[in-house]
Formats: sequence, C-alpha cells, structure tokens
Amino acid sequence: MGFTHFNDQGQAHMVDVTAKQDTYREAIATGFISMSEECYNLAKVGTNKKGDVLGVARIAGIMAMKRTAELIPLCHNIPISKSEIKFRFDDENKQIQVLGIVRTYDKTGVEMEAMTGVQVALLTIYDMCKAVDKFMEIHGVCLMKKSGGKSGLINNPRFGEITDDYENDGFL
Amino acid sequence: MGFTHFNDQGQAHMVDVTAKQDTYREAIATGFISMSEECYNLAKVGTNKKGDVLGVARIAGIMAMKRTAELIPLCHNIPISKSEIKFRFDDENKQIQVLGIVRTYDKTGVEMEAMTGVQVALLTIYDMCKAVDKFMEIHGVCLMKKSGGKSGLINNPRFGEITDDYENDGFL
Amino acid sequence: MGFTHFNDQGQAHMVDVTAKQDTYREAIATGFISMSEECYNLAKVGTNKKGDVLGVARIAGIMAMKRTAELIPLCHNIPISKSEIKFRFDDENKQIQVLGIVRTYDKTGVEMEAMTGVQVALLTIYDMCKAVDKFMEIHGVCLMKKSGGKSGLINNPRFGEITDDYENDGFL
Amino acid sequence: MGFTHFNDQGQAHMVDVTAKQDTYREAIATGFISMSEECYNLAKVGTNKKGDVLGVARIAGIMAMKRTAELIPLCHNIPISKSEIKFRFDDENKQIQVLGIVRTYDKTGVEMEAMTGVQVALLTIYDMCKAVDKFMEIHGVCLMKKSGGKSGLINNPRFGEITDDYENDGFL
Amino acid sequence: MGFTHFNDQGQAHMVDVTAKQDTYREAIATGFISMSEECYNLAKVGTNKKGDVLGVARIAGIMAMKRTAELIPLCHNIPISKSEIKFRFDDENKQIQVLGIVRTYDKTGVEMEAMTGVQVALLTIYDMCKAVDKFMEIHGVCLMKKSGGKSGLINNPRFGEITDDYENDGFL
Amino acid sequence: MGFTHFNDQGQAHMVDVTAKQDTYREAIATGFISMSEECYNLAKVGTNKKGDVLGVARIAGIMAMKRTAELIPLCHNIPISKSEIKFRFDDENKQIQVLGIVRTYDKTGVEMEAMTGVQVALLTIYDMCKAVDKFMEIHGVCLMKKSGGKSGLINNPRFGEITDDYENDGFL
Repeated sequence: MGFTHFNDQGQAHMVDVTAKQDTYREAIATGFISMSEECYNLAKVGTNKKGDVLGVARIAGIMAMKRTAELIPLCHNIPISKSEIKFRFDDENKQIQVLGIVRTYDKTGVEMEAMTGVQVALLTIYDMCKAVDKFMEIHGVCLMKKSGGKSGLINNPRFGEITDDYENDGFL
Repeated sequence: MGFTHFNDQGQAHMVDVTAKQDTYREAIATGFISMSEECYNLAKVGTNKKGDVLGVARIAGIMAMKRTAELIPLCHNIPISKSEIKFRFDDENKQIQVLGIVRTYDKTGVEMEAMTGVQVALLTIYDMCKAVDKFMEIHGVCLMKKSGGKSGLINNPRFGEITDDYENDGFL
Repeated sequence: MGFTHFNDQGQAHMVDVTAKQDTYREAIATGFISMSEECYNLAKVGTNKKGDVLGVARIAGIMAMKRTAELIPLCHNIPISKSEIKFRFDDENKQIQVLGIVRTYDKTGVEMEAMTGVQVALLTIYDMCKAVDKFMEIHGVCLMKKSGGKSGLINNPRFGEITDDYENDGFL
Repeated sequence: MGFTHFNDQGQAHMVDVTAKQDTYREAIATGFISMSEECYNLAKVGTNKKGDVLGVARIAGIMAMKRTAELIPLCHNIPISKSEIKFRFDDENKQIQVLGIVRTYDKTGVEMEAMTGVQVALLTIYDMCKAVDKFMEIHGVCLMKKSGGKSGLINNPRFGEITDDYENDGFL
Repeated sequence: MGFTHFNDQGQAHMVDVTAKQDTYREAIATGFISMSEECYNLAKVGTNKKGDVLGVARIAGIMAMKRTAELIPLCHNIPISKSEIKFRFDDENKQIQVLGIVRTYDKTGVEMEAMTGVQVALLTIYDMCKAVDKFMEIHGVCLMKKSGGKSGLINNPRFGEITDDYENDGFL
Repeated sequence: MGFTHFNDQGQAHMVDVTAKQDTYREAIATGFISMSEECYNLAKVGTNKKGDVLGVARIAGIMAMKRTAELIPLCHNIPISKSEIKFRFDDENKQIQVLGIVRTYDKTGVEMEAMTGVQVALLTIYDMCKAVDKFMEIHGVCLMKKSGGKSGLINNPRFGEITDDYENDGFL
C-alpha cells in the first residue's frame, strides 16, 4: 500500500471520497507537554485558582479542530458534530497530557481534526507558560483510537484498551 | 516570575507591547516525527522522486506561520519578514526532523510562529503518511534558539551551540 | 435545565449532535443602530443615490454568517443553504433595523449564524458612519423566530406574530 | 463632513492612510446582554465555580479583535499591541456588561477592533446561555473612549469621565 | 432568465438551496499564464529539477478551493469531496495551462471552487516567477465542463469534447 | 537572475526582507471579463438600477486584498494602507475591466495584493452572472504599474503612460 495523497503520477491531490458512504466516525488523539517543576506548579495552581491556562488552551484546541482543513493542505473540509479537549496533570513527570476527541457523520475520518486540536492546545499551553520556562517540550503526540468507516475500530497498541471513562482516569 | 498572559486578577489578556521598541528578532524551533520503516522509506523515496511529502509539508508549515495569531489566543498578530521550513531524514531512527525559522522586525518575538510552523509541518507529514502507518509519533518539539528583544540570544542547552550551517548538517 | 455547552465536570465542549437527524431549520434575528439626525440622513441619502452604506453592510453580514463557527468557540461548523440580510429605515427614531435570515438542512440550528450576521452588518454600518457620528449605539439585538429541530417553531413574544412579508413591512 | 469610506464618485474604498504618522492609540468599547433571572444566576454561579461562561467569552472576544479586518470590509488590517476583555455582573438589571480595550502604535485607530471584540464576546455569552433563555437581548453597544491620532482624546458623554480603575468598578 | 443572486427587490442574497437534492457534481475549470521565454524556461527546468514552482502552486490552488466561500460573497460553503490541480507546459506559446477539478455530493455546484482554485494557482505561479518577468499575463480562465444537478452535463463548446485522459494530454 | 522564492538548494521559502527599509509603495493591476451580450446588458443595467453586480464585486475584491498572504504561500503578510477596486464597462467588446489599486508603507511591494483583488473581483462578477452566461472568460490579468522600493517606478509597456485620472477614463 502506498500514500493515497498522491496520484499515479506522484502529484499531490485531495483524495476522492465522493462515492463513500456517510458513517459515524470518532477519533481520539493525545499528546504531552513537559516543563520545569516551577512552571508545572504555577500552571497547576492557576488552573485551580486563577490564571486558568487550561481553560484558554481548551478553547484554542476546540476552535482549531474546526479549522483543520485550512491548515492541512490535503485534508477534506467536513462538518464536525462533537469536539472535546481534556487535560490531565501528571505530577510525577511534571507534564500535562492533552486528549482530543472528535466525532462526525460523514464520508471521511477525523484523525487530523483530533491531532490538530491536540497540537494547538499544546502550543497554547506553551505560549502561556513560556515566560517561566523557555524550553518546554511537546512529545508523545499520536492517535489513540479511531472508529467508523471501512477500517472500523482501531486502537493504538501503545495504550492498551481505551475506555471512555476519562474522569476516573483523572482527566478534566 | 509568573505567567505574563494573566493580569493581576488572574484573567487572560494579550500582553501590552505598545511601548516596546521594534528590534530584529529570530526564532528557531524543531520537532520530529518517527514512523515504521516501511513508511519512512516510502516518504524518503517519494521526496527524491515523486510523491513529494516534504514539499507539501514545507508549504503548509510556512503558511501556518503566518496564521499563528489566529490559532493561539493571546499571541500578537505581527508581520513576518522571513519564514523557512527545513527537513532532515534520520535513517537510524526512522524519523524526520523539522526546523522552523522565522524573523521579524517588531515589538515582540516569533517563537510561537516558529513552533506553530513546525507543528503544522509535522501534522502534514502525518496526514500524508497515515495510510501506511496509523501510529506515527510526533515528539521533541521545542525552541532551539531565539534572539532579539530584551532577553537577547538564548540557546536551548539541549542542542549545544547552534550554527546556521543547516546544509552541512544535512537539512533540505 | 442547565447550560449545554459544559459537560458534567463544568468544562466547555462542543455539544455532540452526531446522532441528531438532519431537518430543515430557519432562524431570524434582528438588531438596531441609532445615530444622530445628520448621520442618519446621510446614510439614507447615500443608500438611494451614492455612497451605498447598506450595500456594503449587507455583503459583510452575509459573509460573516458563513464564518460564525470561526468566531463563536463552541458553535458547530455547518453548511448554510440560504443567507439574507435586510434593512429598514426608521425615520422617527433615526435608526436602521437589520434582519438576518438563515436556513440550513442539518443537525443543529442556525440562531448563531443569524445573530452573527446581524451583528457584523451593524458593525459595518457603524464603521462607515463613524466619521460623522462617533457615539452611535447598537441595541435590540435578539432572536425573532426559529423553526426546525426538536423544539419546532418559536416566536419571540416581543414581536407579535412574524410574517414573511418583509417588503410590505418596509424592509429592503 | 461626509462619510470617508466613499470616494468622490460615491464608491466604497479603503481610506488611504499611507501618509499618516504612527501614534499610540487606544479605544474602549462597551456593551450589555440582559437575560432572565434564572439564566443570569446560572451564568454568575458558573463563572465562580464551574461552567465558566465568561472565560470562554473572553477568549472569543480577544481572538475576534485580531480578525476585525476580515469581517469589516473597509477596515485596515493592523497589528494590535494589547487586547483585553472585561466583564461586570449587574445584579439589579440581570445583565452582564462587557468592556473591550485595544491599543496599537499605528496609522489608524482601533475603535472597530474594540467594538468587534465586545460584539463577539456578547455573542459567545448568548451562545452559551441560549439553552436556558432563548430571548436574551444585546444592547448599549457603543464606543466609550478613544485616544491618539489627529482627534486626540474623546470621551463618550453618556458615561461621564472614564477612569482606568476597572477593578474598583467591579470589572473582572 | 436573470441573475439569481439578487432577489425581487434587486438586493444581493445567497440563493436558497435548502430544498434541493444532494447529487454528485463535478466542475472543471482552466486558465493560462504566459510569460517571457527566459522565465518560461526557468519555470520548466525548476519543475523538473529544483525550485518546484508548480508543486507550490498546486498546493495553493487546492487549499484555495476549500476557502472559496470565504472569498466569493454569495457562494455557499459546502464540503468538497475531491480537489485536483493539474498543469501543462505549452512550449510553443511559452505559457502554462492550469486545470482545476472539484467534486462534491451536495445541493449546489462547484464551478466557483474550480475557478477559484485555478485563479489562485495562476496567482501563485505569478508570485514565484515575478522576479524574472514583471509583466506575465493571466488569460483564458473559464469553465470547461460541469455535471450533476438539474442542468446535467455541460461542455464548454470552445474545447470540443473533454475526455478525462489528462495524462495523455500532457497534464502533470 | 533567478526565482527569489527558492533558496540555493531549490527549496521554497519566504524571502528574507527583515533588513529592508520601509518605503511608500503602490501597485496597480488590471483584468477583464468578457461575456455574452445578454449577460453584459443585464450586468450594466443592474449596476445602474438594481441588482448591483459591481457593488458586490468591489467589496469582495477589497476584502481579498487583505487576505492575500493567506492564499499565496510565499507572500508576506503586511498591513495595507489603501485599497481600491474600480470598474469600466467596455460596450464594444462586451467586457468589464477591473482595476486594483493598493498602497502600503512597508518593506515589500503589494503587486500580489493588487493582482489578488482583481482576480477575486473578477471571480465575483463571474459568480453573480453565471446563471445567464456559463462560459464567460477572464483574461488580460496583469500588473499595470508599480512604484516604491529598490526598483522604483515601473510601467507595463502594454498600457502606455498610466495617469491617475481614472474617472476621465470612465472608471467607476
């Protein structure tokens, strides 16, 4: 199997999905940003009290999901029927985990929307914290799970079975 | 020092830079995407012959740099005077490294523009390769170097001294 | 009943409409801008002869309706199947009334599109007239009527029964 | 004096400011949204505890300020050097007041940016509260104060003298 | 028959397509840019070896197709299910021909998307070549063929029968 | 001389203008759309009476000028200090001529802004007239004149000397 975003002549194109069926589709992506202890503590305190870093990053991530097709050249522009960004503080590793959840009922999947939402949420945390730590690192950005369409349910083997019980897992 | 993106009441705002001087400013950010061997080889061959993954990702990254302030809520909208995206194939680790370089002559820095360009270039590689490898991972996204403004030249200690001799370092 | 844009944990999200049926939906919103007599007369004369304030505001309002989901963080991005902006001069009160009419055949309503179109049309009138009157006031912006979806036809009691006979009512 | 957005032939154009000097400029706009008592109480409680309506509206308003020139046809696209959105609960009238504050160092004023930020913040509150009250009303949207440029300091006589002591005035 | 983009009062509006059926629709548009011999040769060599003018223009054209409704005031915003930009070098006339191909399954046609993609691809070639030839000319931009919807298949008589065998016709 | 939009390795980049001086710059571009006699007459009558095709196209062209850097990948994002779109009816050839005039005081020229404004104005005329003539043709799109910057005043030799007396030349 090869890259579908190039035609037989090797030229980039937006894949033809005209004849595909609309189906329910979901994608969940994740990613992390690790930072110095001082910066991590400030971000955590602010989220609980004032200076709500995660509140801003959440909105930025949700808004970016809707603009994915403007950023990613060969991505289809489709209506999104649900968007969610969740966060988890990981005290041990001084890092914040982001989860991006997107659903649609359309002809093509929403992995790119989930991935883009996670990336922009991470960038927004970076922007708001960079006065305190200039060398934060974003890492572990990948797809966790997707469902719907021809390929059906796919779980990223790295994460074991993925439940929807985000709250019990400590996500806000 | 605290987070500058919140005022004394803990409310998010766009920092006032009205009274700051225009100075020459540069920022360089980097990041990586690692993938399966099969996928890596296809991406590398395509770049040399046909199916030019990196050519598309380069344009996406440069265009995203110009739209940073639309994505990152508290980022200033400023004219950019130079944008560049560079890539390096890392055969040993089956990963592609991205470099984002931005310059301006303005009142505020361009780290966020460099970081956003890197992230969107990485997402575009992901989009174009995901038919072959569904679980690629984006990692190591961080600032390498910034100069200009009050804080002057700052190098990320992780990278040692950073020269501008990208070509000798194997970047395209 | 509570705010649907927050989940059980009180975090903002874009409501899940994946499982909702497509239905015909319409929303009509309105709003007013009042100004000094001198300014009002110039706007009215210009619309009839030259310096067409309303022609520009009409286009701005229609274009803004299509970009509602970029502006309103938790609003779904959906295709719009009809957009219209109408105006009425109210000589007695030296004010211009704007009407925004939007239709779609989709899973969720278009109140926000109608409201956003009205607001941007009002802002555009403001922009074009502000050289003459610096303290115009925008007021009375609200939903007049919506239909379609689970809640069916709803009329704003403030306006009595709303007919579609806009021309007889003096709207252009 | 006439409308500057039309040339001698009565055709719309973007006014030529090429030869104008850069100066420090500020604009402050305001606006109100009134709602049912039930809805008002929910919004107020949420802001203090969870379901942070104002946190979302603040980000939407700040982001919209940066996109003013995309929405308002004849408005110049200029860099903004400070953006702020503030809110005040008015228990007596069951309404929320919004304040939009913008600064730049450029050739033309930022009234439209301040007005647009206020309008989009109000629309976002509307969007988040509309499940509880369908007939909220937006009103009293106008310029409070502007300074800089040829016309210097101008206060809207409706508001008396405007100090910058927003916190003492109860704004968040 | 008259212009459908104006209502009975002569006011611009976005035509109501709410009640129309979704059908498969395709549109193909074309256009040309002619340039000096020196410039043409540089563009052609670059495309084969390095300095890939057409690779950049292709991405710009595809991305612009998705943003047509933001640029063309009365154009509907619809999901696109396939986008393609193709090029042909015409050595005899020192010109490059662009082809824009768009498909959707929706209530309204995609001529404007195909036309906009062609225009932006041509503008991008212009931008990249203008250092060498300041007076290139864009010409011959028109619809070649459309199908789907009430009017069915329509071929531009200027072009004779249009096959889909673009490769045999020398398009890349 | 070669293409400046590629670096020594043949890779696309946005040219570095950081060290260039701000100067006054102007660019004027033009273009034509020719149509059937029936369509031409409807457009001309509408402009004078009702169904104002040119009024809509003028706004679309001016708004597009401000978004040039979003559409053209390697174009710098700069503030525009004056935008104008003008039209002339050419009865003999049943065509409409468009003129795009842009000014700035910045480090780089505004040809692309003028060209993009002309193209989007032409596309908008096309959109509004296409119900009457499906095979209109856009042609003769080129730069007429530019001034400012290192290269100073440049006139397109095709047009002879270009005065600014547009009204005497029949432009609206």
